[in-house]
This record gives sequence, C-alpha cells and structure tokens, in this order.
Amino acid sequence: MTRADGRTDDQLRPVRLTRGFQKHPAGSVLVEFGDTKVLCAASVTEGVPRWRKGSGLGWLTAEYAMLPSATNTRSDRESVKGRVGGRTHEISRLIGRSLRACIDLKALGENTIALDCDVLQADGGTRTAAITGAYVALADAVSWLGARNALADPKPLSCQIAAVSVGVVDGRVRLDLPYEEDSRAEVDMNVVATDTGTLVEVQGTGEGATYTRATLDAMLDSALAGIEELTRLQREALA
Amino acid sequence: MTRADGRTDDQLRPVRLTRGFQKHPAGSVLVEFGDTKVLCAASVTEGVPRWRKGSGLGWLTAEYAMLPSATNTRSDRESVKGRVGGRTHEISRLIGRSLRACIDLKALGENTIALDCDVLQADGGTRTAAITGAYVALADAVSWLGARNALADPKPLSCQIAAVSVGVVDGRVRLDLPYEEDSRAEVDMNVVATDTGTLVEVQGTGEGATYTRATLDAMLDSALAGIEELTRLQREALA
Amino acid sequence: MTRADGRTDDQLRPVRLTRGFQKHPAGSVLVEFGDTKVLCAASVTEGVPRWRKGSGLGWLTAEYAMLPSATNTRSDRESVKGRVGGRTHEISRLIGRSLRACIDLKALGENTIALDCDVLQADGGTRTAAITGAYVALADAVSWLGARNALADPKPLSCQIAAVSVGVVDGRVRLDLPYEEDSRAEVDMNVVATDTGTLVEVQGTGEGATYTRATLDAMLDSALAGIEELTRLQREALA
Amino acid sequence: MTRADGRTDDQLRPVRLTRGFQKHPAGSVLVEFGDTKVLCAASVTEGVPRWRKGSGLGWLTAEYAMLPSATNTRSDRESVKGRVGGRTHEISRLIGRSLRACIDLKALGENTIALDCDVLQADGGTRTAAITGAYVALADAVSWLGARNALADPKPLSCQIAAVSVGVVDGRVRLDLPYEEDSRAEVDMNVVATDTGTLVEVQGTGEGATYTRATLDAMLDSALAGIEELTRLQREALA
Amino acid sequence: MTRADGRTDDQLRPVRLTRGFQKHPAGSVLVEFGDTKVLCAASVTEGVPRWRKGSGLGWLTAEYAMLPSATNTRSDRESVKGRVGGRTHEISRLIGRSLRACIDLKALGENTIALDCDVLQADGGTRTAAITGAYVALADAVSWLGARNALADPKPLSCQIAAVSVGVVDGRVRLDLPYEEDSRAEVDMNVVATDTGTLVEVQGTGEGATYTRATLDAMLDSALAGIEELTRLQREALA
Amino acid sequence: MTRADGRTDDQLRPVRLTRGFQKHPAGSVLVEFGDTKVLCAASVTEGVPRWRKGSGLGWLTAEYAMLPSATNTRSDRESVKGRVGGRTHEISRLIGRSLRACIDLKALGENTIALDCDVLQADGGTRTAAITGAYVALADAVSWLGARNALADPKPLSCQIAAVSVGVVDGRVRLDLPYEEDSRAEVDMNVVATDTGTLVEVQGTGEGATYTRATLDAMLDSALAGIEELTRLQREALA
Repeated sequence: MTRADGRTDDQLRPVRLTRGFQKHPAGSVLVEFGDTKVLCAASVTEGVPRWRKGSGLGWLTAEYAMLPSATNTRSDRESVKGRVGGRTHEISRLIGRSLRACIDLKALGENTIALDCDVLQADGGTRTAAITGAYVALADAVSWLGARNALADPKPLSCQIAAVSVGVVDGRVRLDLPYEEDSRAEVDMNVVATDTGTLVEVQGTGEGATYTRATLDAMLDSALAGIEELTRLQREALA
Repeated sequence: MTRADGRTDDQLRPVRLTRGFQKHPAGSVLVEFGDTKVLCAASVTEGVPRWRKGSGLGWLTAEYAMLPSATNTRSDRESVKGRVGGRTHEISRLIGRSLRACIDLKALGENTIALDCDVLQADGGTRTAAITGAYVALADAVSWLGARNALADPKPLSCQIAAVSVGVVDGRVRLDLPYEEDSRAEVDMNVVATDTGTLVEVQGTGEGATYTRATLDAMLDSALAGIEELTRLQREALA
Repeated sequence: MTRADGRTDDQLRPVRLTRGFQKHPAGSVLVEFGDTKVLCAASVTEGVPRWRKGSGLGWLTAEYAMLPSATNTRSDRESVKGRVGGRTHEISRLIGRSLRACIDLKALGENTIALDCDVLQADGGTRTAAITGAYVALADAVSWLGARNALADPKPLSCQIAAVSVGVVDGRVRLDLPYEEDSRAEVDMNVVATDTGTLVEVQGTGEGATYTRATLDAMLDSALAGIEELTRLQREALA
Repeated sequence: MTRADGRTDDQLRPVRLTRGFQKHPAGSVLVEFGDTKVLCAASVTEGVPRWRKGSGLGWLTAEYAMLPSATNTRSDRESVKGRVGGRTHEISRLIGRSLRACIDLKALGENTIALDCDVLQADGGTRTAAITGAYVALADAVSWLGARNALADPKPLSCQIAAVSVGVVDGRVRLDLPYEEDSRAEVDMNVVATDTGTLVEVQGTGEGATYTRATLDAMLDSALAGIEELTRLQREALA
Repeated sequence: MTRADGRTDDQLRPVRLTRGFQKHPAGSVLVEFGDTKVLCAASVTEGVPRWRKGSGLGWLTAEYAMLPSATNTRSDRESVKGRVGGRTHEISRLIGRSLRACIDLKALGENTIALDCDVLQADGGTRTAAITGAYVALADAVSWLGARNALADPKPLSCQIAAVSVGVVDGRVRLDLPYEEDSRAEVDMNVVATDTGTLVEVQGTGEGATYTRATLDAMLDSALAGIEELTRLQREALA
Repeated sequence: MTRADGRTDDQLRPVRLTRGFQKHPAGSVLVEFGDTKVLCAASVTEGVPRWRKGSGLGWLTAEYAMLPSATNTRSDRESVKGRVGGRTHEISRLIGRSLRACIDLKALGENTIALDCDVLQADGGTRTAAITGAYVALADAVSWLGARNALADPKPLSCQIAAVSVGVVDGRVRLDLPYEEDSRAEVDMNVVATDTGTLVEVQGTGEGATYTRATLDAMLDSALAGIEELTRLQREALA
C-alpha cells in the first residue's frame, strides 16, 4: 500500500530551504515541503513595544497568511473581509510561541523580530513548513544583528526548532501529509520539536474520530524522526 | 510538597454541574471547576446554514467568551474593540471540534446546535471546564429534540466528552491547574477525551521551555485519570 | 382583569439582589426582577483616562451586554458581528449617565469605576434591573475604595439610584413589564429616580401610538412608587 | 434675566423650513432652528427589506449624521473611524421611531422611505430640528408617491410630528436651547409630540443633577407650546 | 450637435462660489458647477500630527464624502457600512495632493488644515468642483491664520489651484461633464492645474475604450482653458 | 549624468516574465522589473456575481497587495489593521480598469476572472509591473478557458496591455523609476497603453511641484516607447 506520490509512510516530501529570497528583511527564506511553498521573512526593528520598554528584553512575533491564489480554489483576501480568520490567528500564535522557545529574549536585547510567513502555494503542512523555514530566517536575522553588534549577548539561540505534520490515513500512520491525504485523515497531528528531540508543541486532533494512546505514540515516533531530518537540513542550509 | 489549595498533584478541584441554569436554551449548564465558572448553553435552531441545506446532516458550532469582570484585572469587551481576539477564536474552534467528535450529525437531522460558553469567573482551566459543561448542555439539547421527535435517529451521541488541563509546576506534573499554577507552569497541556479513554484532542505547549516524551506520558496519565472522573460526574449530573 | 403572572397593576416582580456573586471585581451583584437576571460588576482601576489626568476628578463608565443565550431565541454575539448595536449603545449610555447622577467624581478621586451589566437571562426590564443592581455594585466598590483609603473624600455617593419600567398594556397602566407585556405595550416608559423621589431620567415612548399627558402622569405615579420600594430593597441588601 | 440671544424663556429661535433643497430625493427640506441647520431628505425605494416582503406593509428608516465641519471644533468622520458612535445611533433610532408614529405603514404599501438627516451646522437642538424637518420631507415624499398612484391608501399620514428641546438653565425653564445654553443646562429634555398635543416621546435627563416632578411639568408645558407653534410652521411650509 | 443643456463643447456650467456658508470653520465655501453642489470647509487646528512635531512644518489633509441623498438613487452611508469605499479614498487623496501643491508647509507653521468636501448634490464633476471650492476655503483659512499672526511666513500660498473634467462624448471632446454625459463618456479625464497653466495632476481613463495622443491633446487644450476661467472666478470670489 | 544603476534615461530595467509560477490558478506569472517582483495570478470561477447573472457577460476584478516584508521597512499587514488602505484601493481599481480595457466581456461568457497582484519585493513601479504581468496571467487564463470550450467567443482579448512609470528626476525625464529615484521625483506619471500605442490610462502627478505641458509630452514619449518594448516582451513570453 504505497502513497499517491510514491513515498513510504515515514518519508518526508522533498524539502528545500532557499535563503536570501528577498533583499529587504534581515532574514528571508523560501521553504518548500513538496508543492507547499512558504516565504518566511524575519524583519528586525530596533526597540520593543511600549509595554516592554526598559525591561532589557527583546520581543518576537509572527504573522501567518495565505495568498488568495495559493489554494486550489481562490480564497478571499482577509484584508478585504476586514478581519483575520480564526485559523489564521491560531497558526500565527503557534508560530510565534514555537520560535520563542529557542530564543533567549534577554540575549536579544531590546530588539523586535517580526516573522512573516506568507504561503505562496499550499499543499498541506503549511504551518509546519512555516515554522521550519522561520527558524532559518530567524537564525539569519540573529546573525545580522550580531554583525552589527546589536545583541546583548552573542548567542541568543539555544536550539533549533522544526515542525512536521503526521496523521492516520487509510488506517496507517503517515508523515508530512499533502493536501490530498490531509483532507481525508482520521487523525491529524502537528509536532514542533528541537534538534535534541525535546518537545515544544504537540497538537493532535481526531477529525470526527477519536484515537488511542498507542496511535498517539506511533505518530510521535514518526514525527520526531522527521524533525531530526529537518533539523539536519536546516544546519546544511545555514552552513 | 503540597499545592496552595491543599490538593494532591493528581486531584481535581471540586466540580459542580448545575443543569437548567437558564430558562430559554434547550440545554443550560453552569459548570464549576473550583472558582472557575462557565455558563454553557446549547441553543437549538431548526434548519442548517445555507451551504448545508438538503444534505440531511445537522450542524454544531461553539462560541467561547469571557465577561470583562471574570478576570483578576478587568479585560476589555471584544464587542467594543470590534474584533474577536486570537485566543477567543482558538478556544471557540477547539470546543466546537471537540463536541463534534461525539455527535452523529446525520442522526441529528437538519438541526443546528449552538454552544455558547461564557466564562462568568476565571481561575484557570476555563476551556476545559467549558468543554466538560458543554457536553452536558448538549446532552440536554439532544433530549429536548428527542422529546419533540425532531431527531433523524434516536441516539445521536456516541460517547461522552470531557476535558482537563495538566501541567508541570515546580517540576511536578499537576492536574487541573488554577490560575496561580497555570501562570507559572513550565509546560501546559489540555486533553480532551471520551468516557472510554480514547483521545479527541491533545495540545501540549512548552511555555518558554521544552519537555521530554517522558513528561508528555506522565501528563497524559494524569489527565486521562481526571477525565475518567469527570465523565462519571457528567453521568451523575445527567441521571 | 389580572396579569398573566397574577400581579396587580402596580406591583413589582419578586426582586433579589445577591452581593459578592464574583470574586474579582470590587463590587459584584446579581440582580433579579422575576426571570430577568443581570450580573452587575463594578471594577476599580487606579487612575483615569488620559484626557482627565491631573483634574483631580474620577470617572465612571458603563457597558451593557446580553449573553446570546439570554433571550427567547438565541441572538448573535456582537463581538462576532464586529460592532455594537444601536440598542446596546443606547442602554450603556443610559446606565452610565444614571449612575453618574449619584456620585461626586471629585470625592471619588482619580479612580475609574467600570460598571459591566451583563444580562444572563432576559424577560423584560433588563435596563432598569441593570441600573438598580449597578447601584449596589457601585456602593460596594466605593466601600472597597474607602477601606483602602483611596477616596479623596469619604462619602462620594449623594443618593441612591434605582429604575423601573412602566407601560400601558391592554389599556391599563402597569408596572415592571415582563417580556410578554412589554412586547405588546402601547406605551413604554423607563424611569430612573433617587431614593428621595427626584427624577434622573424619564424616557417614554409611544410604540406606534401616541399618549396623553394624563397617561404620562399615571405612569410616573406608578413608577415612582415602584422605585421607592426598590431603593428600600437596595438598603436592605447593603445593610 | 434675559437670554444671550434676547429671547424670552418660552420663545423658539427663528425657524425656517426650505422645501426642495435637493433635486434627487422625493422630499428634501433644509430646516433651521436659529444657527442649527439640518438637511432632511426622504428617499423612496420601491419594495421593502427582505424580512418584510409580501406583508403588504411599507417601511420607514432614519439615519442621522453630522458633517465634520458642522461643530465648533471639527469632529472626526465616522466613516473614517469605521464605526457609528453611540450618540449617532441613539438619535437615528429616535428619529425613525418618532416618524413611524404618524405613518400608517399599510397605507404606504410596500414602499420604503429612508429619512437622512445630515447636520450642516450645529448649534444645539439638532435632533429636534431634524425630526421637525423630516416630517415635512416625509410629507413631500408621500405626496410624490400619491402623484404616482403608488400608495395603497391615499392618506398614510395620520398626524403631524414635531419636536423641541427644553431645559433648566440658570435655574429657569427655557425652550429650544442653543449650544451655549445646552452645554451648561442642569436638566435637558427632548419632547416629540403631534399637532394635537399628544406625546410621542419624552426624554428628560438630569445632567449631573436630578429634578423634581414640578420641573418636569413646567418643561412639558413649555415644550408642548413650542411644538404647537412648530406644527403651525410646518403647515405653512407645506401649504 | 448641441449638448442637452445647451452649452457649447468648450463651455463650463454656471459656476458659483459662496463663501462663509458655515460659521464654525475658518473657511467654508459652497461651490456649484451647475447642479453639482459641494460644501468645502477648511478647519484649522493648532499643532500637527505626532510624527511631524518639531519639524516646523504644517500639514494639510482632505476628506471627501457624499451625502446619501446627493445622488440620483440613494447611496448607502459609509459610516454605517463601516468602511470607506475605494472611490472615496481615491478622491480624498487626490484633493489633498492637489491642494498641497500650492501651499508652502513651512510658511504655514505647525498648524493643520483639514479640508472637508461634502457633496450635497451630485451631477458629475464632484471631485473637480471640490478641488476648485477647496482652494477658496483654504485661502480663507490662511487669511484667518494671518489675521491671528499664526503663520510662520505671511504668504504660504504660491499659486491658485482649480480643476475640471473633460471627456469624449458622442465622439466630441466636451468640457465639464454633467452626470448624463459622464455616464456614457468614452474617455474621461480630470485635470488639476494652476492659474499660470502648469499642471498638477492629469488623470485620463478610457472607459472600456482606448484613446489616441491627439485626443489627449485636445482634451488638455479644453481643460486648461476651462481652468483659466475657473481661477478667474476664484479671484473674483476672494476679492 | 548617468543613473545610479547605469541605465540611460529612456531605458527599462531588466524585465522578466515567468509563467506557471503557481500550480493552482489558471494563469500565474512572476513579473520582475529589476528588483521589483510581483506575483500575478488569474483565477477563474464559473459564473458571475449575482447582480450580473443572466446578462451573458463575464466579469474581471483585481486586487493588489504588498507582503509586509516586501518593503525597505516592514509595513503593517492590512488584514491585521482590519482595513484596506487608500493606496491599495486605488491601485487595485487601476489594475482592474486597465485590464478590462482589453477584454470583451461578452466573449468571455459568464465567467469571472480574479487578478491577484501580490508584491513580493518592492523597488518602485509595483503597479506598472503588476499591470504588465497581469496581462500575461490573463492571457493564460483565457487560453485555459478556451481549451475547456468555456468561452462564448474564441478571441476575448482585443489587444495587449502594459504599463510603465516615468518621472522627472534631477531635472531629467526618466523611464521606469526604481524606489531611489521615485522617492525624490519632482513629477511622477504612470502610463497604461496598448501594443498599438493607444492610451488606456494616464496619471501624472506633481509631487509638491507643478509641471508644464512640454514635460508632459516628453514623459509620454518616453513611456510609450517603453510600453512598446514591454508588449514585445509579453509576446515573447507567451510564444
């Protein structure tokens, strides 16, 4: 029982991390998980929001969005609708929380890093690709600050962060689901973890179904193996 | 090393489920997890949204909100701000998804159930209390429909749904965190599960920290024991 | 010709004022006029809005809202619609204006009191119940400030404020209309007055009809008697 | 003790009603109460809102607004702020309710009349001028419909509607307050009534003060005399 | 081949500029191009927006809007819709940009002038009438500041600004199009220029058609002649 | 006097048109004018908006937006601000109007084409690059419809559309301004024209300065030569 794209159950799609995609932001990475393409930019601003001034701590935020043309059927533009949808909000918060887990905000000093993750093309796993790419953009932004002697401490990043989706499709645990599998998965889980295999965020959802702890364990095994591979690719890209 | 409120690490706060709190909705339950108090109402409307008409399937939605006076420091009213915040959106979506896991929408027939979970007083764990109370309100709304012969099939509920928070505080895995513990937890997890112990949703977040799989397992053990107790209390309340 | 609920024309519904309903706000009162139940909270913030700083005067605002599940048919949530409706605005303004009539803002000192009146269950007269309950919550908040020596002057409240509805139903002047009468009243009036019988606000509306000055006078007689009784109940509750 | 503009206490400001101010709407009246100038337009649309279709009844709505340049200090544009303020909402609702008191919606047939009251210059009493002018614009719109045989019944207007403000200033009851008096009035009342002296709406507010029933009676006497004069001027304008 | 209103192709409609239309703003002009009537107000505020403070430069903004009753068919109110439409935005920006071309913001000193152009009646050419009238209101506001010694330099206005529309209708180049011509024009151009004939803004649009450079030249000839006449009328009005 | 990037005054930046950039939309083109990069997608929907149904005519709309990371300094996201800005509105309208000039909506049949122009990187001339790229995306979408026999008539495109900016910088007329020149241009013009040199839209703005007709003519000469070259590149890309 093979997958439509020929992969084995525990295999990632081809992953590409292209640094320097845009010229303006301090870090700019195009991340591709198969046909999913997300542009991750890390923009640096001197100073922090008002409520944080004088604390000696920096700040990191994230915003996720999807181009209307990224999806199979054109989706409406949230700026035109005049409000950010629930799903967008949720993913933006997840990305920000995940990346804050690897950065020492004291070492960052009173600087703000805004991570913009804009999906150019969607084919499942956009949030996990975004987190994986955003880490690389963040690393570039931190280097950029370091080169300008603008860090309070030289090494604000304590670990790498990557993420992958995993789910149960056709009764089998499968890694890194494309849209075709994601849309009919019985269980869907997103895992964010570090390069040493400790967990940052686990979100597992039964889609109209429930699942056992044994399934949870099998999904975690698969996801953590995938994340190990993703952090290796991050290191390669940053080398 | 005892907890500030005298509980053991794996003990729930006192739980109360008061049915019939309001006279208008088909189901209305005040749920209390210690000082956390959430009013859960299940309102029934004949018919379904336009995009679902003629499908023979019913629909279930949920909205979560907090009274401005529910929190320690008064919070701004989202209607006045003119937009629903990210946290509110996220929790509303979680509640809806969790409760849809127990209902057969075909058996419900073309009826819509709106679950409103309004927090009257917040002391940690509002979303898990909301899910636990909403199940009881939903059960009442389903009985109400049954009594009017308005169901397509007599038993639309396939299982019970309850939820509880669990976290790592002071280095120890603790169940059902009040605000005082929640605000300083190193890891924070919300678990939604059924009365047979299968999982519906697992959301575990390191708060500025990461955690091991062993910790994840210990948290799940504690949460599932708590949920078993909560589903027993639901049955008692509905008896 | 008796009323559906057995009352005489000039009789109030059973009134209950429960103090200390919530633990966080400085004042928190559940007020019930029959089946109408409104949660009135008075939250204290040190300081005043920017435009008032350094004036030596305090400030008092009010916000009124209705839970979606409070009404006979579920109403849409204003936060989700993204705007506060005209009726909500109007009542919020009425409550604030009414309560500001009894407080000496100089004596209050540079403190802000926010009155939140959230309708848990609606059965006519929600705005008059809200005003009556908000006065008691306000009195508690003022005592709370006094106990902390945070008042500029020990007695900022110059009188009591209460309110009641009155209308013409079936050609008869009736006091404190429940929804069933309110929805078919020919004339509808809300009266806000003090414990000494002076007027704060009179709002009388012909509903698709007009009315004579004699009717206005009869309605005022009935309302003022009702308010006398309500202020007696406020004193009892605060004793 | 005379008034700043030389009027006696019970005297109206000079009132002008200019019909046909705009060419597009079926009725268009510029009403002036002294320096207060409001443009009242009655626009007719065939048909009624969806929820009223097939009822045989017409509909009448009103919207009030103020030009930014109308006030002493320029006020922000509500379209730019993105929301209609509470005061605007409240006055729009008052105008609509008041004018619906004189029209038989069955006789109007399934037509909609929109009354737009735009304040070109504000000097107190804009809402009462708006109501008084809107009645004349409405009368013109009804004639316009009659001339096209578009009414279900030839006489949909059962009476005239006019309005005036009255207040207590410097301890004296005064009619038709300009801004200079209105801004320092102790009590402020708006009265809407018919040409036969029956009441449509009474809204009396103590501004940081309370008032006795005797004051209420004196204010009503003054207002009703003013309204009698205003309805005479309406008849003249329409002759 | 004459025009419906009897004009020759290169003739303006009757133009009127009425100064002092409102009493509050420093400048207030009712401008009429035939049946198009726009109220242009110039309101002065001491000081400038925060981002400009301490620069020694003044600021000038413009907002354009249309009364709902101004058009042939009633248009919805943008404040009620909760957002300013694209056309409104575009015209507001055009007016501000055009008038900033004639004012030396250094000479203005740290003052802000807000130009409000509210269309009372629309019959084509509202934006060009607005610019032409706004110049006169601006001149009055500048005099008002001069009289109060509030200018940094006595002559902040370097030239006059006026505007007119021109288009191709029935195959002929025609000046100052009323709605009847504008709505069926093949090409439509708005020209803003100074009293010495230099250009400020040229916006020419093929409406579902394209046009040659020869047509562009003929339109410019006609527009510049019209603007010469308009600047003469401005001088007369200001004399 | 050469330009910073070494070009002559009448030379375009290097232009690239990459078709098939995204897999979902019927047409998807990445257009580059030097460092300005805009992703232009043409999405096809069967059917037309409600107000156009049954007319036999198709519809074409356009939306322009900028990624936050596209600009030199990160710009705020319009979806988060909750409203589309004036500049965005204006450019979206320009693109839609320009492209509608080349399409026969009757030949298109009752289909809707949405053109999304999202700026990935901004360096001046984003709107003209967007129009030039959108034409190619539109041509691909029309071919896509033709291949599915979904057109009412086989050749809905009557001409090509391209656009370029031109301005006066350092006293010289220059073509296709990058940000560095655009930001200090004295005059700025955008020209949209067809492959036969007829004009679609001309927008020339003095930036705090005015300009003569001779300058206008020189700018048009330069722009039309540039557009001739751009339409040649479009034909090459589509070959």
